Amino acid sequence: MKFQVPPQDQEAGERARAYIDTLTKPVGSLGELEKLAVDLAEMTGQLATEISPPGIIVFAADHGVAKEGVSAYPQEVTAQMVENMVNGGAAISVFGRQIGARFKVVDVGVAADISNPKVIHKKVRRGTANFLKEEAMSAQEAEKAVMTGYEEACQFIENGVKCLIVGEVGIGNTTASSAITACLTDSDPAAVVGYGTGLSEEKYKRKIEVIRQVLEDRKANPGDAIDVLVKLGGLEIAAMAGAMMAAAERRIPVLLDGFICTAAACIAHLLHPRSTDYMILSHYSAEPGHKKAMDYLDKTPILQLNLRLGEGTGAAVAFPILESAVRMVTEMATFESAKVASSQQ
Amino acid sequence: MKFQVPPQDQEAGERARAYIDTLTKPVGSLGELEKLAVDLAEMTGQLATEISPPGIIVFAADHGVAKEGVSAYPQEVTAQMVENMVNGGAAISVFGRQIGARFKVVDVGVAADISNPKVIHKKVRRGTANFLKEEAMSAQEAEKAVMTGYEEACQFIENGVKCLIVGEVGIGNTTASSAITACLTDSDPAAVVGYGTGLSEEKYKRKIEVIRQVLEDRKANPGDAIDVLVKLGGLEIAAMAGAMMAAAERRIPVLLDGFICTAAACIAHLLHPRSTDYMILSHYSAEPGHKKAMDYLDKTPILQLNLRLGEGTGAAVAFPILESAVRMVTEMATFESAKVASSQQ
Repeated sequence: MKFQVPPQDQEAGERARAYIDTLTKPVGSLGELEKLAVDLAEMTGQLATEISPPGIIVFAADHGVAKEGVSAYPQEVTAQMVENMVNGGAAISVFGRQIGARFKVVDVGVAADISNPKVIHKKVRRGTANFLKEEAMSAQEAEKAVMTGYEEACQFIENGVKCLIVGEVGIGNTTASSAITACLTDSDPAAVVGYGTGLSEEKYKRKIEVIRQVLEDRKANPGDAIDVLVKLGGLEIAAMAGAMMAAAERRIPVLLDGFICTAAACIAHLLHPRSTDYMILSHYSAEPGHKKAMDYLDKTPILQLNLRLGEGTGAAVAFPILESAVRMVTEMATFESAKVASSQQ
Repeated sequence: MKFQVPPQDQEAGERARAYIDTLTKPVGSLGELEKLAVDLAEMTGQLATEISPPGIIVFAADHGVAKEGVSAYPQEVTAQMVENMVNGGAAISVFGRQIGARFKVVDVGVAADISNPKVIHKKVRRGTANFLKEEAMSAQEAEKAVMTGYEEACQFIENGVKCLIVGEVGIGNTTASSAITACLTDSDPAAVVGYGTGLSEEKYKRKIEVIRQVLEDRKANPGDAIDVLVKLGGLEIAAMAGAMMAAAERRIPVLLDGFICTAAACIAHLLHPRSTDYMILSHYSAEPGHKKAMDYLDKTPILQLNLRLGEGTGAAVAFPILESAVRMVTEMATFESAKVASSQQ
């Protein structure tokens, strides 16, 4: 697998910066919105980046490690939530409608059969193996999952999506994400593991213990994306990383969600370090490992709303802020065009 | 002036809380969105609060103290920005369109003549007097400005506005807001004053000096809204406080903007302490006095984007977050309706 990610367009960023300073507001007074507009210009090479329609792809898969009692919910919830998503009742469906997003849900590895025709069926295998006992998947399966995500994102972008949101559903996936994040950032599992969907104290401790054991037994190579996926797993995490690669190659901004999404972004970084140049971090998750991944990615978040739902919800909620940044550039008057006197000190 | 502000509906808040816990997501996992939805229920007494269309009123006025060299911009900018706003080129016009807001600009005290028919003409006087030398306005003028704001908001609400955003424009108004905030929170001016629209170091020092002198000379009574307005001024600040009172009386949520808006909210608090029960703070301004006012109002902000533009822009940018909170309640499926298994530990 070889990905070609173009460098950012620094010159476009500078042009955007200079233009923003001519708009009818004190220089710098729109704070982070101005930085976002410059970031977008650097990504797309355009002064005013088109980001609508956004596209949300949710990748669904199960985790063998769920057998170890590391989640508050039973495994069948993955398939049930997939149905809920395509039926429009999940949080990501709701926030997706709010932002006018195109939306698709892709089964890359749910354990159960899903027959709903609104779901895209691309099962690589029926959930990962329990990585406490064995490798989560084969290298071939990891590559297939990455390429499935890649192809789904390519299709989306070919059909007009201008900004990509990558979500997930999969009972047990904060455990996989914690293992990946601990491995890549060389952190103690206790500093990375959180309460996921709402763990009891007992399950929380078990989760830390499981991850500690897994890291010791599997010995994933933190410099090799495929090795990390094979050993610490996550078919949906692999697909998410693949989707991010497709966006980065095509200079399409990716709006990252919370903890699981940033674990996938760390994998994308291993696939090509420049891929992160096309990522914007939407929010600061309540999961402790998120901060580690943020630092690894060298990103700061737009929002801090104490969200810990996943699915891509934080990214969808943050999207209107990105829209404000774009509208600032495309719709505001300049001091000259509006005949407003400028600063005089 | 007597305002009648009803108490919050705690019971509606509890019903909202209980309902939110039945939605298909781990309990509490939508963090601040859940709290916002509960807040809105307490304000309106409804499980699902209607907040659209929002309405933005921008009050415009000049400040006599601008003569003291406390602003980076000349006074004529107030009138020029009023034109820019109604012509659609100002940041608040742009973000207002983004959120589908009704929008009006009311001249309550611009020094210059404004003939544009798109502006609502309610001049109370041509700017305040220079409060370094004399009182900013008479008590009668202060009450008139408050009631002008009140009536404009009443009209808006009668015509269907469901959530109020109160903005402002007025060269010199961070100086008035700093004086008001320092007075009400008993703070040292140096801890309250910021760089406003982008002051030089010299003007920044001058601004602190001016406010220190004003507080000493005017001796405003921090328990009396009208006395504070008379002595520390701000015709637009008075009108903003009045608009907030109209919303609170009618149980319409008010989305507060930055520093000047919170100074007006502090005045509203003096007019009726329960008025703040109907306020949500949109963002954490880069102006240092904002933190003091936040504490006085006992509010925490939704966003922290380092904005310091005013006009109501931070509130407009935050509005979609409120919308997400409402849509969560109105559109998400419950565990029962979606047939999703719930947590089992």
